[in-house]
Amino acid sequence: MNPIKKLETFDNKYPGRDYTITIVNPEFTSVCPKTGLPDFGTITIQYVPAKKCIELKSLKYYYLQYRSMGIFYETVVNKILDDLVSVLNPKWMEITGEFTARGGITTTVEAVYSKKGNRKSR
Amino acid sequence: MNPIKKLETFDNKYPGRDYTITIVNPEFTSVCPKTGLPDFGTITIQYVPAKKCIELKSLKYYYLQYRSMGIFYETVVNKILDDLVSVLNPKWMEITGEFTARGGITTTVEAVYSKKGNRKSR
Amino acid sequence: MNPIKKLETFDNKYPGRDYTITIVNPEFTSVCPKTGLPDFGTITIQYVPAKKCIELKSLKYYYLQYRSMGIFYETVVNKILDDLVSVLNPKWMEITGEFTARGGITTTVEAVYSKKGNRKSR
Amino acid sequence: MNPIKKLETFDNKYPGRDYTITIVNPEFTSVCPKTGLPDFGTITIQYVPAKKCIELKSLKYYYLQYRSMGIFYETVVNKILDDLVSVLNPKWMEITGEFTARGGITTTVEAVYSKKGNRKSR
Amino acid sequence: MNPIKKLETFDNKYPGRDYTITIVNPEFTSVCPKTGLPDFGTITIQYVPAKKCIELKSLKYYYLQYRSMGIFYETVVNKILDDLVSVLNPKWMEITGEFTARGGITTTVEAVYSKKGNRKSR
Amino acid sequence: MNPIKKLETFDNKYPGRDYTITIVNPEFTSVCPKTGLPDFGTITIQYVPAKKCIELKSLKYYYLQYRSMGIFYETVVNKILDDLVSVLNPKWMEITGEFTARGGITTTVEAVYSKKGNRKSR
Amino acid sequence: MNPIKKLETFDNKYPGRDYTITIVNPEFTSVCPKTGLPDFGTITIQYVPAKKCIELKSLKYYYLQYRSMGIFYETVVNKILDDLVSVLNPKWMEITGEFTARGGITTTVEAVYSKKGNRKSR
Amino acid sequence: MNPIKKLETFDNKYPGRDYTITIVNPEFTSVCPKTGLPDFGTITIQYVPAKKCIELKSLKYYYLQYRSMGIFYETVVNKILDDLVSVLNPKWMEITGEFTARGGITTTVEAVYSKKGNRKSR
Amino acid sequence: MNPIKKLETFDNKYPGRDYTITIVNPEFTSVCPKTGLPDFGTITIQYVPAKKCIELKSLKYYYLQYRSMGIFYETVVNKILDDLVSVLNPKWMEITGEFTARGGITTTVEAVYSKKGNRKSR
Amino acid sequence: MNPIKKLETFDNKYPGRDYTITIVNPEFTSVCPKTGLPDFGTITIQYVPAKKCIELKSLKYYYLQYRSMGIFYETVVNKILDDLVSVLNPKWMEITGEFTARGGITTTVEAVYSKKGNRKSR
Repeated sequence: MNPIKKLETFDNKYPGRDYTITIVNPEFTSVCPKTGLPDFGTITIQYVPAKKCIELKSLKYYYLQYRSMGIFYETVVNKILDDLVSVLNPKWMEITGEFTARGGITTTVEAVYSKKGNRKSR
Repeated sequence: MNPIKKLETFDNKYPGRDYTITIVNPEFTSVCPKTGLPDFGTITIQYVPAKKCIELKSLKYYYLQYRSMGIFYETVVNKILDDLVSVLNPKWMEITGEFTARGGITTTVEAVYSKKGNRKSR
Repeated sequence: MNPIKKLETFDNKYPGRDYTITIVNPEFTSVCPKTGLPDFGTITIQYVPAKKCIELKSLKYYYLQYRSMGIFYETVVNKILDDLVSVLNPKWMEITGEFTARGGITTTVEAVYSKKGNRKSR
Repeated sequence: MNPIKKLETFDNKYPGRDYTITIVNPEFTSVCPKTGLPDFGTITIQYVPAKKCIELKSLKYYYLQYRSMGIFYETVVNKILDDLVSVLNPKWMEITGEFTARGGITTTVEAVYSKKGNRKSR
Repeated sequence: MNPIKKLETFDNKYPGRDYTITIVNPEFTSVCPKTGLPDFGTITIQYVPAKKCIELKSLKYYYLQYRSMGIFYETVVNKILDDLVSVLNPKWMEITGEFTARGGITTTVEAVYSKKGNRKSR
Repeated sequence: MNPIKKLETFDNKYPGRDYTITIVNPEFTSVCPKTGLPDFGTITIQYVPAKKCIELKSLKYYYLQYRSMGIFYETVVNKILDDLVSVLNPKWMEITGEFTARGGITTTVEAVYSKKGNRKSR
Repeated sequence: MNPIKKLETFDNKYPGRDYTITIVNPEFTSVCPKTGLPDFGTITIQYVPAKKCIELKSLKYYYLQYRSMGIFYETVVNKILDDLVSVLNPKWMEITGEFTARGGITTTVEAVYSKKGNRKSR
Repeated sequence: MNPIKKLETFDNKYPGRDYTITIVNPEFTSVCPKTGLPDFGTITIQYVPAKKCIELKSLKYYYLQYRSMGIFYETVVNKILDDLVSVLNPKWMEITGEFTARGGITTTVEAVYSKKGNRKSR
Repeated sequence: MNPIKKLETFDNKYPGRDYTITIVNPEFTSVCPKTGLPDFGTITIQYVPAKKCIELKSLKYYYLQYRSMGIFYETVVNKILDDLVSVLNPKWMEITGEFTARGGITTTVEAVYSKKGNRKSR
Repeated sequence: MNPIKKLETFDNKYPGRDYTITIVNPEFTSVCPKTGLPDFGTITIQYVPAKKCIELKSLKYYYLQYRSMGIFYETVVNKILDDLVSVLNPKWMEITGEFTARGGITTTVEAVYSKKGNRKSR
C-alpha cells in the first residue's frame, strides 16, 4: 500500500509570503484493527506552504484509501503528517484527528511538523 | 481586469493611535476555474490603519467583481490582501477566506501583511 | 445480497402498551452509484413495537453492509423501512435519512409505515 | 428487589386544576445486562398529578437503586412508568429515557400512561 | 401576607382583539421550606388579556415578596396563577416555573387557567 | 402623526395561491412613555397576502417613525397590525414584538388578524 | 429564458408509499431587480413524490440560472414552486426561501402546492 | 455638543489592586452621516481603573446622546475612548464597537489606551 | 458583619503540585445599595491552592450572607477575593463576577491575587 | 485498592515526534465520601507520549473502579494524574475533571505534570 501516489500538488503562487491553509474533512473513516468495525472522525490539515500546495480532489482520493484500512488513531494522524510532509515539504504543518466516541470515550490526536525557525503564519 | 480601481478610501482621523478595524463579508462568491461552478465563502478583513481607511460601499463593489471571475481559493485571499495593501498602506492587515464545503471538505486560507515592527493593536 | 439476515430481534416485554423507541446512527455510510464516492448520513429509526424489538448489535452489523453498497438516498431510506418492517412487524415506524452536503446541497428523506389505526405513541 | 418502597409522595394542593410537573434527571446510570458495563442516560418524568405528587429526595434515592442493576433500556423506562403510576395514580404521565451512544448509536425510549379522557394539561 | 396588594393593572386598549402577552423573569428566587436554602428559577407568564393588563413594575415588586418566602415549587406556580387571575381576570393564562437543578434533578411546573371557550390567541 | 403614509405596496403576482411572507426587523426602537428612555426589540411580520404585498424600503421608513415616539409595548404591536392590515388587507397576518429585558424582565406581544376562514398557509 | 429545460427527473421506485424528500440549498443567489446588487438566500424544497423525483445535479444547474437573473424574493419562491410542480407533478410540495438581511431586515417566503387530499407524509 | 458632561464617576475603593471592569451595551444606536439612517451596535468597555470608576446610570445617559448624532463607526469608538479616558484617567482601557450588518457586511472597531507599563489585569 | 467566619477549609493533599480549582456559582444574589432592588450574577473562583482548599458547603453559606447585603458590583468581587485570600492564603486566585443586565447594560468585574512568582497552573 | 493494575499500554510508534493525545470521558462517576451520594463528571486526559501510550479499553476499566469509590474531586484528578504518569512516564500530561453542579455550584479541577523542558506539543 502506498497512498502517497494519489496525492497531487500545484505550485504555490505566493511563495514569498507565509500564509496558512486549513482543510477540514469531517467524513474520514477507517477500520479498527482490533474489532474490524469502522472508525469515524474529522481530519484537519493546517499548513504554511513552501513551493507547493495540496490539490483537493487528489486529497479526497487519498483519504478514500483509509476506508478499508485497519489502522489505529495515533497512526492515522502521524502517517497523514508524514505523507503530506514528504509530498509538500511545507514550512509548517499540523494534523488533527478528532474521532467519534467509542464506549463513551472520545479521542483526539494532534501532531506537528515544523522546519527550523518556521511557525504557523500570523 | 483591474479591480483596485473600485476601491475608495477616506482619511483616518486617529492616525496617532493603533486600532483595529474588522470587516466581515459572508456573501462572497466567485467561480471555480476548474469546474465553472460557483464558490461561496466568508471574507474577513482585519487591519490597523495608517493614514487611510477603506470605504465600505466601494469595498462591496470591489467584491462584486469576483462574482464572475474564475479564481482559486488561495489566490482570492492573497489577491485581496495585495489589492488592499496597495490602496491603504496599512500598519498591519490580515485576510481570511472561509469557503463552503466541496465534496465534504472545507478550506480556509489566511494571509498576513505587516509593516516592520507593527502588529494587530491591543 | 440479503441484508435482512443480519437483523435479530428480542421479545417486547410490554406489548400491551404503545411506546416509542428512537435509534439514531450518525455514522451511516454507503456509496454513490453514480460517482463511486462514499456518501455519509444520519439514519434515525422511530417505531412503536408490537411483539418484537430490534437488537442493537445486529442493527449495527446490518448497517455495515451498506458500507460498500452502491445505492441512492431515496432507496436507502425506503429499503431500511422495508427490511425492518418485515422483521419487526411494528405498529408504526418512521425512517429518516439526513445526508451530508454534496455540491452545497443537502438531502433528507423520511418514510413512514403504519398499521391501520396506529400512530406514534403519545 | 422492590424499588417502589423508596418512593414517597405528598398531597397535591391543587387537585382541582390540571397542571403538569416535569422532572429531569441527567445523572441516571444503570448496568447493561449483557456486558456488565455501565449505561448512562437522562430520565424525564412528565405528569399531571391527581391526589399525589412525587417527593424529589425519595425519587433521587429510588434512581440510586438502578446504579448496580442489570437492566435493558426499554425495561428501565417502562418499569419507572409502572412504579410511578402505582404510587401516584396520576391523570397522565410520560417517561422518556435518552441514553448515551454505544458503538456510535443512540437510543431513546418514551412511554405514556393516560387515564381515560386525560391528557397533558394546556 | 397578601402579595396581591402590590399588583397594579392598566386598561387593555385592544379588548376586542385576542392577543398574547408573554413576560419572562429569569431572576425569580424564593426559599425552600425544608432546608431554608434559596431556590432559583425562571417564571414565565403568558396570557390573553380581557379588560386589564399587568403593570410591569408592580409585577417586579410582587415577585420581590417571594425572596424571603418559604414555598414549594408547585405552590409558587399555582399561587402566581391564582393571584394574577384574580387581579386580571384574563381570557386565558399560563404560568411556567423552571427551577434550577438540586441534587442533579431539575423541576418545571406549568399551570393553565382558561375561561370557557377561550384559548391562547393564534 | 400618521405613519401609514409612509407605507407603500406592490401587486401580489400570485393572488391565487396562499403563501406566507415573514419579515423580521431586529433593529426596532421606540421610547418608553413613562421614563423617556429608549426601548429596543425585534418586530416580526408574518402574512398571507391577498392583492398586495408590502414594499420593504417603505416599511423601513415606517419603522423609523417610532424612533422618537413614546409608546407602550402592547400598543406598538397592535398599532403595527392595524396599520399594515389597513394598507394590505391581507388574508391573515400576525405581528410579534420581542422586547429586550428591563429590570431583568422580558416582554413579548403577539397579535393576529384573520379574514374569515383564512389561516397561515401550509 | 426557460429554466425548466435544465431540470431532469428519475422514476420514483416507491410510488405506492407517501414519503418526504427535503433538499436544502444554502448557496442560492440572484440579483435584486431594483438595485442590481446580488441577493443571497437558502432555498428549501420539501415534497412527497408521485411518479418522479428530481435529479440533484440538474437541480444545481437549474439554480445556477438565477445567478444573473433580476427577480424579487416573492417571485423566486413561487416560480421555483411552479417549475418543479410542472416537471414532477408531486403529491405535495413546499418551497421556502430565507433571504439574508438587507438594511437590517430579513425576509422569508413559503409557498405550498397540494394535490387534493394530499399532505406532507407522516 | 459636549457629551462628556453627562459622565459621572465614583472613587475606586481598591486603587492598590489592578482589576478589570467590563461593561457591555448591546443597545447602542447612532445615525449614519451619509444616509441619515440609524446604525446599531454593541459597545464594550474594558478598563483597569486608577482612582475612579464610571457610574453606570450616567454612562447610559452619555450613550443616549448618540441616538440622534450623525457619526461614523471609527469615530464612535475612538471618541468614546477619548471621552472616558479624559474623565477616568484609567491605567488601561479598550473600547470595542460591533455594528450590525449593512449590505451584508459587518464592521467591528477596537481601540486601546494604555498608560506606560500598564495592561489588562490578570 | 463578618462573613469570613462562615468559611471553612480542608488540607490540600497535593501541596507539592501547582493545580487549579475552579468553582462557579451562577446563583449569586445581593442587593443594590442605591435602589434596594436585588442584583443577580455568576461568581467564579479560580485558584492554585497552597496548604488549604475551600470547603464547598461553607462557601455556599458564605454566599448566602450577600442575599440581603447592600453592596456594589466592584466591592462584591474585591471583597470575596480579600476574604478568600485571608482564609486560604493561596498561590494565585482570580474572582470573576458577571452580573445580569440592568437598563440593557451588563457588567463584569475580574480581580486577581498573586503571590510573588506564582501564576495559574499549566 | 490498586487501580493501576488495570492500566495497559502499547508502544508509541512515533517517539521521535512530540504530539498530543486527548481522551475525553463524559461518563465518569464516583461517590461523595461525605454524603455517600454519587458524583458525576467529565475527565479529560491530555498528554505528550514518550515511549508508551495508554490502551483505551483498559482505561475504561480503570475508570470503572471509581464507580463505588468514596473520593473527593481534588483527589480524583490528582490521583488519576499520578496513576497515569507512573504507568506512561509521559513528556507532559494534564488531567481535567469537570464535575456536575451540587447545590447550584460547579467545580473543575486541573492538574499538570511536566518533565523538565517539556510542554504540550505545538
